[in-house]
Amino acid sequence: MKIRRFSTTDVDFDSNLKALLAFETAQDDSIDIVVADILKDVKKRGDAAVLEYTNRFDKTSASSLAELEISQAELTAALNGLPVDQREALKTAADRVRTYHEKQLMSSWSYTEADGTLLGQQVTSLDRVGLYVPGGKAAYPSSVLMNAIPAKVAGVKELIMVVPTPNGERNQLVLAAAAISGVDRVFCLGGAQAVGALAYGTETVPQVDKVVGPGNAYVAAAKRRVFGVVGIDMVAGPSEILVICDGKTNPDWVAMDLFSQAEHDELAQAILLSPDADFLDKVNASILKLVEGMPRKDIIRTSLTDRGALIQVRDLEEAAEICNYIAPEHLELSMDEPLAFSKTIKHAGAIFMGRNTCEALGDYCAGPNHVLPTSRTARFSSPLGVYDFQKRSSLIMVSAEGAQTLGKVAATLAYGEGLQAHARSAEYRLKS
Amino acid sequence: MKIRRFSTTDVDFDSNLKALLAFETAQDDSIDIVVADILKDVKKRGDAAVLEYTNRFDKTSASSLAELEISQAELTAALNGLPVDQREALKTAADRVRTYHEKQLMSSWSYTEADGTLLGQQVTSLDRVGLYVPGGKAAYPSSVLMNAIPAKVAGVKELIMVVPTPNGERNQLVLAAAAISGVDRVFCLGGAQAVGALAYGTETVPQVDKVVGPGNAYVAAAKRRVFGVVGIDMVAGPSEILVICDGKTNPDWVAMDLFSQAEHDELAQAILLSPDADFLDKVNASILKLVEGMPRKDIIRTSLTDRGALIQVRDLEEAAEICNYIAPEHLELSMDEPLAFSKTIKHAGAIFMGRNTCEALGDYCAGPNHVLPTSRTARFSSPLGVYDFQKRSSLIMVSAEGAQTLGKVAATLAYGEGLQAHARSAEYRLKS
Repeated sequence: MKIRRFSTTDVDFDSNLKALLAFETAQDDSIDIVVADILKDVKKRGDAAVLEYTNRFDKTSASSLAELEISQAELTAALNGLPVDQREALKTAADRVRTYHEKQLMSSWSYTEADGTLLGQQVTSLDRVGLYVPGGKAAYPSSVLMNAIPAKVAGVKELIMVVPTPNGERNQLVLAAAAISGVDRVFCLGGAQAVGALAYGTETVPQVDKVVGPGNAYVAAAKRRVFGVVGIDMVAGPSEILVICDGKTNPDWVAMDLFSQAEHDELAQAILLSPDADFLDKVNASILKLVEGMPRKDIIRTSLTDRGALIQVRDLEEAAEICNYIAPEHLELSMDEPLAFSKTIKHAGAIFMGRNTCEALGDYCAGPNHVLPTSRTARFSSPLGVYDFQKRSSLIMVSAEGAQTLGKVAATLAYGEGLQAHARSAEYRLKS
Repeated sequence: MKIRRFSTTDVDFDSNLKALLAFETAQDDSIDIVVADILKDVKKRGDAAVLEYTNRFDKTSASSLAELEISQAELTAALNGLPVDQREALKTAADRVRTYHEKQLMSSWSYTEADGTLLGQQVTSLDRVGLYVPGGKAAYPSSVLMNAIPAKVAGVKELIMVVPTPNGERNQLVLAAAAISGVDRVFCLGGAQAVGALAYGTETVPQVDKVVGPGNAYVAAAKRRVFGVVGIDMVAGPSEILVICDGKTNPDWVAMDLFSQAEHDELAQAILLSPDADFLDKVNASILKLVEGMPRKDIIRTSLTDRGALIQVRDLEEAAEICNYIAPEHLELSMDEPLAFSKTIKHAGAIFMGRNTCEALGDYCAGPNHVLPTSRTARFSSPLGVYDFQKRSSLIMVSAEGAQTLGKVAATLAYGEGLQAHARSAEYRLKS
């Protein structure tokens, strides 16, 4: 395998970097058409439609949606049935994620002006949220924790999880994670039909206010289509890591950190920036040496060959500039004084500081969320958080005195815009 | 004209209410196809494409995009050229909007655990934002203030406004608002081509990180399509007001408040809830009496006839329940003790409290933003704010000691998910 090697002094570096990062999710029209039909049918026929699609796609033979609901008792049993080390690890992770997210809670605020006018914002939680959890090979219990816990911390009253169970197989780790996170109801549903059931509601599945969680192309297309009827989280692209290293970290560590991203899937992207050319050579050697021992070596090889790169920079300042252009999902600062350096980072989903802080710790149990903006969207968006399950209402209470001054201003501007009813309603409150 | 009259005791009230609120933006496929082609062309040919579309659709004859940029001097001249009362009103409104939004600024935070592990979030602003301002009849200077000021308060370095100028006509009030709000650059561009120029960047128009602001169906379709390449604000539906009144407010005032929403466009929705049937009669009479004197009476009549309603409720508690179902964009609480009552409101874009607080004050100058969630989306979204122009990066710095405990937890969970590189990268940090 051969990994791309760039230097920022290459004459064509800028265009090479741009090409390396280029990634456009081809919006597949055929998928979109299928999804549109399923959604329309679920909206119209409710339970009956959802049941038919589920039995067909997941090869089940349920006779009602109620049969596909998993009881709280089964969730608890799944948790109690785990090996002790897994159960304890899951609990530790959940506790740490909860503690961190509790710091994100937003509060209502207001202030009163001299004339008695009150202004502010009232913060409330969403009432009901749907959590999509993929089935099969990409069924990650950590993903249940990361999506469910912020919602519950925000105060969401009812959290409804859907997870496809092809051939009726239920993933015990996923159910255990649901138990730990306080998920209120779980249905064995997946695909566009599950998203439709959550967005529109059916006789059995209650309508939610927002749908979050990862899924395949059908799920992503369905989420895009129901956006507006319900809220959605971001549609995620392939996972990415950018490591900036001063050259003094064990090259095996850095290689393995790059693998931990590359092993996700063939489209994942792992990039290393360092001012030290020898160090880049050493990491390259570590990669070649270590990849053979990895169970997911084929995926790692494809990912690193197609989308990986080792890039020599002039200095760490230049690395920060490049990072701000890339706006990576995960950023590791494997160097001395990483905290000071982090102040120069404007755009990144999560910043992992210091040689000890491998990204995997953040994926599972450090506390911060592992749902992060991908594909350069960290330029304008944030990790999933409690704030995604709270929202604000403006508060405006104008005093009789305030209505005199504000009324004149509003009327002047309203007349300027040709909106006379606006002007008149303000003028009615003026004491002549 | 005849306005719908419901009572919550009607046997078919629930279905009537649902039908009243039903509104689905028909996504027009023909518009979408045109927009997709324009965006593709702008992405490929840059300035040349934008110039062609602009000259064609806006009937201009510019020979370069540079010609379509408006200088800061022209913005200042527009401001200085306004009648004194308009200029002063605009300044007062801008100052109040700025003061209110400054309270929304988010700050970075972090905490350190007993073992020295640091966790937190770093808050940064977006670098560059595009602000779409409609031309022609819907050109509202207040909209420039409401979109531009939060971005500048957030610390956005470059704010680029686009506004179509059909036949080359420049709206002086809009340019004056841009001057007051600190907009950095203004281009006379509109439609999907303007959105494309901002999202992809051209030789002359810099690429932005987010596009905000209202627009017609072409602009909305273009924003949906570039979402992901850049951030966008919500795609707004028709404007709505819900008034809850105890029956003790002057019925003319309430009628005019309903008009102030209805005059926006034929699809706007104005609803009044009151436990007092006589009061509903009186407001009905006020509507019939006052509508004749309104310059926009045709729009008001259509809006109130097609989408308005006067609804008798059992009591104010029931009104709050109905409000929480409707999740209105604007909510007026025209009653005694509105602040106490507001605590029972879970879902509303903005809450206007007390008989003096007509919605028009909030549209222009009270301080809070007038860009609010419509079509029941207040169930899961918030007014536009400074927080829409800031974003967060997770901060994780695990100490050597922390890496021992967290590493074991992460490795256990990673092996459980079949992600061995994740596990190994955590285990590398364990001191054996």
